[in-house]
Amino acid sequence: MAPHIGVLLAGCGVFDGSEIHEAVLTLLFLGQAGASVTCMAPDMDQLHVINHLTQVPAEEKRNIWAESARIARGEIQNLATVHADDIDGLIMPGGFGAAKNLSDFAVKGPDGTVHPEVKRLITEMADRKKPIGALCIAPATLVMALSDRTPKVTIGNDVGTASAIQTLGGVHQNCKVDEICVDEKNRLVTTPAYMLGPGITDIAVGIEKLVNRLIAFCG
Amino acid sequence: MAPHIGVLLAGCGVFDGSEIHEAVLTLLFLGQAGASVTCMAPDMDQLHVINHLTQVPAEEKRNIWAESARIARGEIQNLATVHADDIDGLIMPGGFGAAKNLSDFAVKGPDGTVHPEVKRLITEMADRKKPIGALCIAPATLVMALSDRTPKVTIGNDVGTASAIQTLGGVHQNCKVDEICVDEKNRLVTTPAYMLGPGITDIAVGIEKLVNRLIAFCG
Repeated sequence: MAPHIGVLLAGCGVFDGSEIHEAVLTLLFLGQAGASVTCMAPDMDQLHVINHLTQVPAEEKRNIWAESARIARGEIQNLATVHADDIDGLIMPGGFGAAKNLSDFAVKGPDGTVHPEVKRLITEMADRKKPIGALCIAPATLVMALSDRTPKVTIGNDVGTASAIQTLGGVHQNCKVDEICVDEKNRLVTTPAYMLGPGITDIAVGIEKLVNRLIAFCG
Repeated sequence: MAPHIGVLLAGCGVFDGSEIHEAVLTLLFLGQAGASVTCMAPDMDQLHVINHLTQVPAEEKRNIWAESARIARGEIQNLATVHADDIDGLIMPGGFGAAKNLSDFAVKGPDGTVHPEVKRLITEMADRKKPIGALCIAPATLVMALSDRTPKVTIGNDVGTASAIQTLGGVHQNCKVDEICVDEKNRLVTTPAYMLGPGITDIAVGIEKLVNRLIAFCG
């Protein structure tokens, strides 16, 4: 039976949403592994909109769900309607949106909070021993949601972010971009992706390993 | 010597810009083939903005260059500054933007016109016998730009679009999603991608073949 994996998006673009390469490679490797996919995102405005050419914040509002639909080609659920019983595993691609929209870690660091629907789904998954994958900066939001379970993750080797993860109650493990960090107890798989990069071929190696390890947890 | 390939984007999202999966897979396979890449897009507002969740047009403006920068992670040139002497080959991913923003084929069919900078670069490439790849609906814009050279392309098997391509002076060849159409004389490589789909793993096969054939033309 092919596993059914949820992909939790946070907008469309590295500076204010989901990192597009990470999200698309996740979908590619899930498909190649024979998994079926449900994309999902919260129905809420983004923290802000960043012009990706100038990196200047723009005077406009964009909805996370509607922007994430660009990556999902329109096939995407409202996160509030998805429950752990609907999926066998969950993957959170990175990009600043994973720490600006799914939580406010990018703004408040370890003093931040997780979007309530994100926290709900992550907690439901963990309670059912269903695996969760997180890429790039998304592990910070994951640790924030599971801070009482001593989650072990990687965000690469950034000292400040690793320290914040430890402050949150997590355990940080340095990893290279082509490696994954596996928390066997909590069934978490993480990889640095564009926290290290530098290029799409580099991040693809770690993301493919993450997807395949997550699917092995499902079996 | 690794070839240097231009990737011409048209926004960010299948319904009003570049199809995101096609663009990202193009970048992935170019990287895996050892090519270096320059992304580029015209500095102009999109024809319109489509909410990708509801498919309803939105009351806002978005700039093609700035939205394309989301796919390119901010590293993207203004098309007007790129010349055929700067690159060894050019690839145009699909999505409606390729026929709404790079030309107006989606609105006017064979009576449409190509964006002047797009036409300039395509013509420069063809004059220098440098190869051009086009995915999905982008071959329609390519044929419009090279209508006096009897370009041979595929957009899959859609009868109406194939007929419009013939009206424009092109030759249409039906292809499956995992196949490419090669015009040896004009050095064009095309593949149906999401004109046929249905999924990301299906389109990846044809796109990888297209990239590798384009690079062989560069050698």
